Amino acid sequence: MFFHKQELQFKAKPDKPDAVYARKLQEVLGGQYGEITIAMQYGFQAWNIHIPGKWRDLLFGIGSEEFGHVEMLAIMIAQLLEKDPNADLQATVDSDPVMAAVIGGTDVQHAIVAGAGARPVDSNGNPWQGSYITASGNLMADFHANANGEMQGRVQAARLYHMTDDKGVRDLLSFLIARDTMHQNQWLAAIAELQADGLEQLPVPSNFPQKLEHSEVAYQYLNFSDGAAAAEGSWASGPTPDGNGTFTYHDGPTTAAHMPPPTQPDPRLYGTDAQPNLLDKAKATVKDIAGK
Amino acid sequence: MFFHKQELQFKAKPDKPDAVYARKLQEVLGGQYGEITIAMQYGFQAWNIHIPGKWRDLLFGIGSEEFGHVEMLAIMIAQLLEKDPNADLQATVDSDPVMAAVIGGTDVQHAIVAGAGARPVDSNGNPWQGSYITASGNLMADFHANANGEMQGRVQAARLYHMTDDKGVRDLLSFLIARDTMHQNQWLAAIAELQADGLEQLPVPSNFPQKLEHSEVAYQYLNFSDGAAAAEGSWASGPTPDGNGTFTYHDGPTTAAHMPPPTQPDPRLYGTDAQPNLLDKAKATVKDIAGK
Amino acid sequence: MFFHKQELQFKAKPDKPDAVYARKLQEVLGGQYGEITIAMQYGFQAWNIHIPGKWRDLLFGIGSEEFGHVEMLAIMIAQLLEKDPNADLQATVDSDPVMAAVIGGTDVQHAIVAGAGARPVDSNGNPWQGSYITASGNLMADFHANANGEMQGRVQAARLYHMTDDKGVRDLLSFLIARDTMHQNQWLAAIAELQADGLEQLPVPSNFPQKLEHSEVAYQYLNFSDGAAAAEGSWASGPTPDGNGTFTYHDGPTTAAHMPPPTQPDPRLYGTDAQPNLLDKAKATVKDIAGK
Amino acid sequence: MFFHKQELQFKAKPDKPDAVYARKLQEVLGGQYGEITIAMQYGFQAWNIHIPGKWRDLLFGIGSEEFGHVEMLAIMIAQLLEKDPNADLQATVDSDPVMAAVIGGTDVQHAIVAGAGARPVDSNGNPWQGSYITASGNLMADFHANANGEMQGRVQAARLYHMTDDKGVRDLLSFLIARDTMHQNQWLAAIAELQADGLEQLPVPSNFPQKLEHSEVAYQYLNFSDGAAAAEGSWASGPTPDGNGTFTYHDGPTTAAHMPPPTQPDPRLYGTDAQPNLLDKAKATVKDIAGK
Amino acid sequence: MFFHKQELQFKAKPDKPDAVYARKLQEVLGGQYGEITIAMQYGFQAWNIHIPGKWRDLLFGIGSEEFGHVEMLAIMIAQLLEKDPNADLQATVDSDPVMAAVIGGTDVQHAIVAGAGARPVDSNGNPWQGSYITASGNLMADFHANANGEMQGRVQAARLYHMTDDKGVRDLLSFLIARDTMHQNQWLAAIAELQADGLEQLPVPSNFPQKLEHSEVAYQYLNFSDGAAAAEGSWASGPTPDGNGTFTYHDGPTTAAHMPPPTQPDPRLYGTDAQPNLLDKAKATVKDIAGK
Amino acid sequence: MFFHKQELQFKAKPDKPDAVYARKLQEVLGGQYGEITIAMQYGFQAWNIHIPGKWRDLLFGIGSEEFGHVEMLAIMIAQLLEKDPNADLQATVDSDPVMAAVIGGTDVQHAIVAGAGARPVDSNGNPWQGSYITASGNLMADFHANANGEMQGRVQAARLYHMTDDKGVRDLLSFLIARDTMHQNQWLAAIAELQADGLEQLPVPSNFPQKLEHSEVAYQYLNFSDGAAAAEGSWASGPTPDGNGTFTYHDGPTTAAHMPPPTQPDPRLYGTDAQPNLLDKAKATVKDIAGK
Repeated sequence: MFFHKQELQFKAKPDKPDAVYARKLQEVLGGQYGEITIAMQYGFQAWNIHIPGKWRDLLFGIGSEEFGHVEMLAIMIAQLLEKDPNADLQATVDSDPVMAAVIGGTDVQHAIVAGAGARPVDSNGNPWQGSYITASGNLMADFHANANGEMQGRVQAARLYHMTDDKGVRDLLSFLIARDTMHQNQWLAAIAELQADGLEQLPVPSNFPQKLEHSEVAYQYLNFSDGAAAAEGSWASGPTPDGNGTFTYHDGPTTAAHMPPPTQPDPRLYGTDAQPNLLDKAKATVKDIAGK
Repeated sequence: MFFHKQELQFKAKPDKPDAVYARKLQEVLGGQYGEITIAMQYGFQAWNIHIPGKWRDLLFGIGSEEFGHVEMLAIMIAQLLEKDPNADLQATVDSDPVMAAVIGGTDVQHAIVAGAGARPVDSNGNPWQGSYITASGNLMADFHANANGEMQGRVQAARLYHMTDDKGVRDLLSFLIARDTMHQNQWLAAIAELQADGLEQLPVPSNFPQKLEHSEVAYQYLNFSDGAAAAEGSWASGPTPDGNGTFTYHDGPTTAAHMPPPTQPDPRLYGTDAQPNLLDKAKATVKDIAGK
Repeated sequence: MFFHKQELQFKAKPDKPDAVYARKLQEVLGGQYGEITIAMQYGFQAWNIHIPGKWRDLLFGIGSEEFGHVEMLAIMIAQLLEKDPNADLQATVDSDPVMAAVIGGTDVQHAIVAGAGARPVDSNGNPWQGSYITASGNLMADFHANANGEMQGRVQAARLYHMTDDKGVRDLLSFLIARDTMHQNQWLAAIAELQADGLEQLPVPSNFPQKLEHSEVAYQYLNFSDGAAAAEGSWASGPTPDGNGTFTYHDGPTTAAHMPPPTQPDPRLYGTDAQPNLLDKAKATVKDIAGK
Repeated sequence: MFFHKQELQFKAKPDKPDAVYARKLQEVLGGQYGEITIAMQYGFQAWNIHIPGKWRDLLFGIGSEEFGHVEMLAIMIAQLLEKDPNADLQATVDSDPVMAAVIGGTDVQHAIVAGAGARPVDSNGNPWQGSYITASGNLMADFHANANGEMQGRVQAARLYHMTDDKGVRDLLSFLIARDTMHQNQWLAAIAELQADGLEQLPVPSNFPQKLEHSEVAYQYLNFSDGAAAAEGSWASGPTPDGNGTFTYHDGPTTAAHMPPPTQPDPRLYGTDAQPNLLDKAKATVKDIAGK
Repeated sequence: MFFHKQELQFKAKPDKPDAVYARKLQEVLGGQYGEITIAMQYGFQAWNIHIPGKWRDLLFGIGSEEFGHVEMLAIMIAQLLEKDPNADLQATVDSDPVMAAVIGGTDVQHAIVAGAGARPVDSNGNPWQGSYITASGNLMADFHANANGEMQGRVQAARLYHMTDDKGVRDLLSFLIARDTMHQNQWLAAIAELQADGLEQLPVPSNFPQKLEHSEVAYQYLNFSDGAAAAEGSWASGPTPDGNGTFTYHDGPTTAAHMPPPTQPDPRLYGTDAQPNLLDKAKATVKDIAGK
Repeated sequence: MFFHKQELQFKAKPDKPDAVYARKLQEVLGGQYGEITIAMQYGFQAWNIHIPGKWRDLLFGIGSEEFGHVEMLAIMIAQLLEKDPNADLQATVDSDPVMAAVIGGTDVQHAIVAGAGARPVDSNGNPWQGSYITASGNLMADFHANANGEMQGRVQAARLYHMTDDKGVRDLLSFLIARDTMHQNQWLAAIAELQADGLEQLPVPSNFPQKLEHSEVAYQYLNFSDGAAAAEGSWASGPTPDGNGTFTYHDGPTTAAHMPPPTQPDPRLYGTDAQPNLLDKAKATVKDIAGK
């Protein structure tokens, strides 16, 4: 169960409205790596988990915070939209050359659809979608997805930091960036702890027996391009991070197979096949097919 | 430039057609973590990269291999569909009780749309989409996305391994799983090398000055749920993985702010506001608005 | 801010696993009118609202409950998936003819992608998307969207009730249906209260001056089909619900206008236009265009 | 069957081209609540209906009109695009400071993809999609969806009215707004008539026996936020609109249940579970699994 | 304007309900090449056209017929769903082994969402979307899209013909297939007439001066694969269909260029670049950035 | 298998960065008819083909070239973004009035999400999707789709040519337009060769027996609009392109059927039906339904 409190985790109030920036901020609300993604991802991982205790508590504990971040950003965006320039275009153009320049960059649905409100979309107006989240049931894989999510989120927030000089907006971003710092660290710690607790090893999933894989290509770097410098990396020689093998470098594939012959599916699927499809022949088959 | 060779990296030939399994295999071809995603992700990272040499070579070298994996899976699926049961339903039902049971689980677009061919969709028929991929320009973040992609891919392939006993299909999966093993290891090695080369540190992005973030909450575990066991994890005390801080545990938020008052946008956006909108008043404003 | 409690609002435990039903239940979790839609819709309406007090409290008060319904359904689905038949197909087919019949109707991504977990998708596997929700800033319009949402939700839950005889599932549905009863009533009461408080009247938006609309067609029923019985309805004669007019019935449109001539955009957009585009003429224009 | 007449229901001709406004107008053509949605929604409701006579005639009669509204808007948009500024940027910038300011706000696909033509997309370029429409077979629920659709449509058209001073565009909007007035009234009349005719009552669906729902929570306001003013509304005390109950107010949930234990699905789905997955153990299980 | 007549162009009545087939039939209603696509495509081409007379009349004349095909299919699907097996599963399984086998293949949203009604989706439940249609303003290009649409549609209808032995369904398909025959022929005739009337030639768009293209590669077959048989085709030697050139065959590209160096965007976008990003250096830049 | 070479087929280097144009260029990279579509379409057609030899070699030979075009455009876009104006707004506005005017037209995700890199989206930011491609297994139908794809692509590139005066960009477009010229010609040649080889005739699919279609309407022009000029076209009289019939013209449909009565599905789907659903009756049925 979720309970709501009419407070925010941090102050979210811009110095002044800015409809163009409101559009940009939609990215970290409703984009691929926005807060809706993060909140929903931790939620589904928690609901689907197979282990009680600290792992589930961790996912619930952070996931609920993230729903509050969704709220802070939505409210900030609504405030940035309080004077949508579409409503008084002439005045805006007259008074502010920078705003005049960028005014075409507003999200017009903010005004037309939401009446100056936030929307569950990214900065190009693409609706948020469930396919952004990851919850596989394998915690090691999912925690890497989580670490990546927090990294992409912090990169985007850092970029947005420099696209405004509004103190109120920067203040909120500074807060969210700090929480991204925490959450990056936390998922990296959790990845280490999964291994330390013996719950999962590399490669993921660690309980699929490596004997069943074609082990002769399991640690080979196969170079399918002509850039030779890839051989210089630590991924091309030496021990592998999973501790089970040794990297080797190969200039191209070490295995090959003939391409199978084309398929010959049922003629009633009316694909084009190699037998000439002469009119006489076609007419002859009418009766068979028609007779069915 | 890409050049094509009419060979496969590994043999891809099923023992017998199986339209239901063909549908399942679409997941690792055209799903969120299917081979199209992986190939396109490495491609865009390479085209957008800011560093020449080993990093770019690595992305091109692996990315091109992955396009070949797309091809192997597409061809395997076409072969699995060579006898689509939809074409001769009665015969299938009569001869094979397991197939009869699951026959409803085929992807009917395989027959109707593709004439027994592979499609760029996942196992539920959702078209592959560009929003699956990640290419941020920040290599540390993106390599975590890549590691996650290879982990999710290996988890899915391992699951699919047990959903068939077709030796030819399992053989191909064994090969792909081995390559996933390699690629997981490679990205983890590359992450370590990025740090060793001094190109990027934690937290990502490491060149955003931490001074600018609200450092008082940058290493706090804030528990927004009532599961107390989260305090037991290494994410709640001790040094942080980025080496810059110390985890602390807090039972709930350490900061709070008043919720801002509701916004009051332009009345011509016709939202509902607090002033009673009596008919008399509305009529009075007609002239003003109409006069504009 | 949202706080989470590791309890459910109602018991959510099926008598036995049923992967086919788990798929069906996804509709009321992640479908167009599923609980994610309802929770998000009330959330965005609250964050964007222009009035403090009872209206905002109402949206926050119900919206938070709905996030808990998302959780209940996700957990129920995970339990229904605990024995996914894809994992042991032969045994299922042998032991249960009804299950054998429907087994093809499972959502295969439940197993392959989520490892027997719930997903943010509908019963056909379409990912939930932000375009399902409505939050226009006009409370009268939005509360009609909310009433509709609760009605569609209750219709779907009632249908699902008869598609299982699992007592645990039916118990949860009975609870959710009761809450839908409450919420339908609540939004209808809120619609009446908006009018009683003088905040909004019909037609919506009531503060757009009706003088500005083409009032001669504002209360006409115009019949564009040949079914004459539409004239019998209360929408074809008598006073209108908004109290501002009288319905009249017309057998077809009462206004007409000539279709404008085709447009003639810039030739450099290379549409096909009426002037013959002879090769000689084309060659002559090369210099002009090339010269630019 | 549909027949077309090369006339419009109302004149649709702008005073002058305006590519930025053409983009905005796409919202009421191809957006969530645009005319394509409305036309298709009434069409599907008519095709799926279970009652002959006035109800079906009503849906066909209005639905066909709406396809004509799609046409009027598409033609208006094509005319607004007749001088797309992208074709002669320099001239536009030189001659009109307001246009210069907003020129970045055009839909560039209007020029690149459609050659200065209308498109089946919303004002952010999102393609129209079938998931916008509602046709459940339950007329009471669907007529609430229709009333909502006409309200949202009228709100959007009213907003668009103030974003232009083009007389021709405003004229068309005035016509469409008047038809929205009619259609709002009509669906509200139809809702009342459904009840008067005894075809459907509240709560919807009225033929699902309320005995089967958990009636103890069917009329309770449960406040999951800390805003106490929600108790002041008519939704918190007094008789309910469906005439079957009495509202009561509760500060939080009146029921609670333990969260079920985590699920334990088949190990071959390779989720992470609570048993330490040590390497020795994993190796031991290889034979079992491999032997299958 | 569109007018509706409560008749169908052809009888559309199945011998008996068949929910599985209803799902399959959704493809030609709401799929990529279903009737919604065809009707909307001709509509948008007509609304955007730049030529009055026979070309516009053709598009309106056929486009309106196609909306009637949408209707026929929707009504047929509703009838096929009249006994949805999900409503009485046990009886179905007991009485009909073929239906029992395929019952999992129903579209469960037909029952849950539409109450046994048609939906604007394809046979996998993907909603119809505006991005399926083509209306570029160039008639030669668009008529090729139309010819393709009618071909794909006839192929799909022919496949569906053999997936049922219901006489009523086959009868409707026979009618639709005949209309596809007509429409294929019509668009091919229109393509020839466009050229004969001198409105457009090959290559499309013919009024883009070929002088402006790199003519040395305009008629070269460049083989990027190792299959040599492509040289045998009429696309590798002899005159070209546009009458302007001669095909030549080349075993690989005839031009090549160096790959440009990696880009170096603004450091405030926090991509990873080649300069080691040491902590000392990062700290030094704090002041500059923070000072902005 | 695909192999990559770190060269481009043609030089791709803009004279100067232009973030607005970078957005426009996304259309021919990731749009409906962009290079990703073309490359993937030829790939899937090749993988699904039923004939070895020249047809398969053709698809592989061209398809691989197209992946290289994806690369050229992605790299060009990254270069155009090297100075994203969002990073230094003030300077841009001060120095260049045209850029100042259009600056709002940038794709803000280029900066926020990709750090000044290309993305797999169209010029409105819609992600590329698998539903853009066509691969039906019927070569005649698919080659018409291919010809259309190359025509739409050439039209779009020609439009883009005039939207910039950057010599480097125009140079690349001139190259790509020339390749579109080649590929249009090639598919038209291949269509003729399919017929000459006797593999497929008109109408497509030619091996569906025309006897099975309702031949009385197979060559009739049925005019559903009131524009009489359609009768003047070659599609209204004379021999048909397939050589099997003669066009005739009809002013409206030549066949008609009664609309079937409304459907009466299972009452447990809770649609609204014609029988008054009085409360007394509803209560009586409770026991029956509840008893199940």
